[in-house]
Amino acid sequence: MCGYYRYKVTISYDGTNYGGWQKQPNTNSIQEEIECVLSKMLKEDVIITASGRTDAKVHALGQVFHFDSNKQLEENNWKKALNSLLPRDIRVQSVKAVHQDFHARFDAVEKRYDYLITDDVDNPFVENYMAKDTKQLDVAYMQECANVFIGTYDFTSFTSNKIDPRKPRVKTISKLEVVKEGRNIRMIFVGTGFLRYMVRMISQTLIEAGKQRLTKEEIKDMLDSKDKHACRHKAPPQGLYLVHVRYKDDK
Amino acid sequence: MCGYYRYKVTISYDGTNYGGWQKQPNTNSIQEEIECVLSKMLKEDVIITASGRTDAKVHALGQVFHFDSNKQLEENNWKKALNSLLPRDIRVQSVKAVHQDFHARFDAVEKRYDYLITDDVDNPFVENYMAKDTKQLDVAYMQECANVFIGTYDFTSFTSNKIDPRKPRVKTISKLEVVKEGRNIRMIFVGTGFLRYMVRMISQTLIEAGKQRLTKEEIKDMLDSKDKHACRHKAPPQGLYLVHVRYKDDK
Repeated sequence: MCGYYRYKVTISYDGTNYGGWQKQPNTNSIQEEIECVLSKMLKEDVIITASGRTDAKVHALGQVFHFDSNKQLEENNWKKALNSLLPRDIRVQSVKAVHQDFHARFDAVEKRYDYLITDDVDNPFVENYMAKDTKQLDVAYMQECANVFIGTYDFTSFTSNKIDPRKPRVKTISKLEVVKEGRNIRMIFVGTGFLRYMVRMISQTLIEAGKQRLTKEEIKDMLDSKDKHACRHKAPPQGLYLVHVRYKDDK
Repeated sequence: MCGYYRYKVTISYDGTNYGGWQKQPNTNSIQEEIECVLSKMLKEDVIITASGRTDAKVHALGQVFHFDSNKQLEENNWKKALNSLLPRDIRVQSVKAVHQDFHARFDAVEKRYDYLITDDVDNPFVENYMAKDTKQLDVAYMQECANVFIGTYDFTSFTSNKIDPRKPRVKTISKLEVVKEGRNIRMIFVGTGFLRYMVRMISQTLIEAGKQRLTKEEIKDMLDSKDKHACRHKAPPQGLYLVHVRYKDDK
């Protein structure tokens, strides 16, 4: 393609009604909804590339994707036009023209995911937006256990056991905070990148620790074992949010 | 029915996926979901009576209904049992045995409804839970106009024009507050009772005033006219919450 333009788009979505980010047969996907709208507007087939996938029912506040077009688009008009055609649970936050070398996946240098859990189990309004647990969790101990994960490790124990064995499983977590917010607990993960299910598996592991069902030593052993069957815990998807993707040229 | 017991149940619901409170053909309803679960549990046909109806997509934090049964139920066990069978967007808050004379509709002495509107139009998570408007609203002027409605009036101008003309349309509003909460505005209505669409019609009228599209004098004229065609404004249902129903014997 000669003389094309590349665009970086930041979006939020409520993942409740989707089978996940990635286009796939027999279920709707966020990728497909967006490609469909872009293709219609640009009158050409458009393929979009995200910073990474999110699973079914997982939400995003700041997912990023890029796409190419022969057309030169005015950024703010394009945001409005896209939002007028997209489903109401997918909202464009910004559209920016970027250098043709920009890549939403390869250029991402840091991601933030938040995981939310509440003990407000009789609240019907958080059903799709948080995990629920009646138990009082020991937040201080959860933080102590969270510190085990800070650093650069092989996270084989905390990802899908169906993951391609050739895929690198060494990741760096630079921050993992466990914060009490009223009746909710927020776990904030910042790192270079995360393997499939990694945030949800670590989250549920910390929740188990908060219930005195796992010790810090056991968690350390799980991480050290690099055994794809070591961790059987995985928090439900509706508590997970892709909050932010940082790129090398971002301030 | 001899020797029966009457129960008062307080529930919250996310109205997004329902055609409203009331049982009706061709749509699902909150009443039907609850009656179905109660009938199954009690092995008898159960009819429930609410404090009042809510329309399609309208939410409740503290709706109240009563029902009768020959069986004596343990209050907290019943809450748990009901919540285990009800859809996750309908949650029982409490079950209480009450005197056989208690009536969820006739004994209600006061209701509180809140209406929520936001200017955070690109937020996909509030789609079903607030009205959205890009305009900056003049909250002080909205409150000034809201004061017009405080007192006892014939609210013919602020209800469905299909309402039964024999139905009394005099209601008392004891409190109507317009409160700024970050990017949202909350309108708090407290009164003896509200006619169909009354809260949504007054809410949109105040929103129009907040945009300088209606004056306090015009609103006063609308109220005074007692004309069922006077008000053409009605805010969307997803911003409306039945917050609380107070009964004469409540503290």
